[in-house]
Amino acid sequence: MPKQVDHRERRETIARALWRVVERRGVAHLTLREVAQEAGISHGALQHYFTSRGAMLAFAMDFAAEQTSLRVGRGMRELGDRPHPRDVLRLMLIETLPLHADARAASRMSAAYVLEALHDKDVHARARDGMLQGRALVEQLVRQAIADGHIPADRDPANETNLLLALTGFTPLIELGVIEPQDALTAIDEHLNRLFTGDDRDASR
Amino acid sequence: MPKQVDHRERRETIARALWRVVERRGVAHLTLREVAQEAGISHGALQHYFTSRGAMLAFAMDFAAEQTSLRVGRGMRELGDRPHPRDVLRLMLIETLPLHADARAASRMSAAYVLEALHDKDVHARARDGMLQGRALVEQLVRQAIADGHIPADRDPANETNLLLALTGFTPLIELGVIEPQDALTAIDEHLNRLFTGDDRDASR
Repeated sequence: MPKQVDHRERRETIARALWRVVERRGVAHLTLREVAQEAGISHGALQHYFTSRGAMLAFAMDFAAEQTSLRVGRGMRELGDRPHPRDVLRLMLIETLPLHADARAASRMSAAYVLEALHDKDVHARARDGMLQGRALVEQLVRQAIADGHIPADRDPANETNLLLALTGFTPLIELGVIEPQDALTAIDEHLNRLFTGDDRDASR
Repeated sequence: MPKQVDHRERRETIARALWRVVERRGVAHLTLREVAQEAGISHGALQHYFTSRGAMLAFAMDFAAEQTSLRVGRGMRELGDRPHPRDVLRLMLIETLPLHADARAASRMSAAYVLEALHDKDVHARARDGMLQGRALVEQLVRQAIADGHIPADRDPANETNLLLALTGFTPLIELGVIEPQDALTAIDEHLNRLFTGDDRDASR
């Protein structure tokens, strides 16, 4: 179905053009017109895909989330058949940080989207749903790791999940050069080491 | 010097008007004209204080940082003469979270400022300096707490500082309703409890 492929390709082209505009000028200056120009299409053609700035942002955000999932999926395959839950959580955390160009674009989109959410109910609901899904996935991994003895049974899964999610707070600190990427990775590894102390006892790893 | 007081008051009025505009419509729609209207002064009068949108944002950010310092200062006085370093770090962390109206305004300004910093060198340098100062203050407290035996001596002060700073990552999670304020506080307390285990040994607290 070449037509559908074209449609999808065109939307990707637009999403990437939107990222470049956000990267260069910030979300404050993001307009349909600017994105059309960057994507090399007419304003009218862009409106065929997105009827509003909000719809365009929502698509760019979904596309960013999709790209992040694809990167996590690739990383998972590298971890082999039965990946250790510590490595899975590490991969998920690290792919949200702005450590390479694609992740940085997604992370900047995400930050812009959170700001938009503060004064737009639809964006708020959509951003919240996405983050709640991510949170549920992390909590499921934590609960399974407790059940399997990797994390001590006296740890509260909801609380540990919240602490893991808070580590996404390294993003603005890395973006502003307050904390070096390598130091953020060291801190994340240290946090995970303290969480996965169940493995020390049974040496199952 | 009533004239200086007036000048300062006027700038504060403008900063608070700016916050309301950011709160209501987001930084994307922030213009000198909009802020002048919200503050109830003419565009020309506003330009007397700020020659550009960037200068206005920088002032609003400094004002937000100043207000946060004042709140931390008030909290410090409530902690008494010789506050425990755990309580000082808790106070500093919590006052950066959007848990009440003033802190929320400052936190939203800060998020907007970080986004602006990504494509504005001056804003980047200014935001980085502010955050580096905050980081240095936290690291100094951590080092002193290690020296005083509150935190075990085998903890790396730079790494512990980075983990504490990452907890500011609760901000977007609270703003989007992904994590409840009370759950963020519980997680922060748990993290501090695990850090200040030196007190368990000598029961100095």
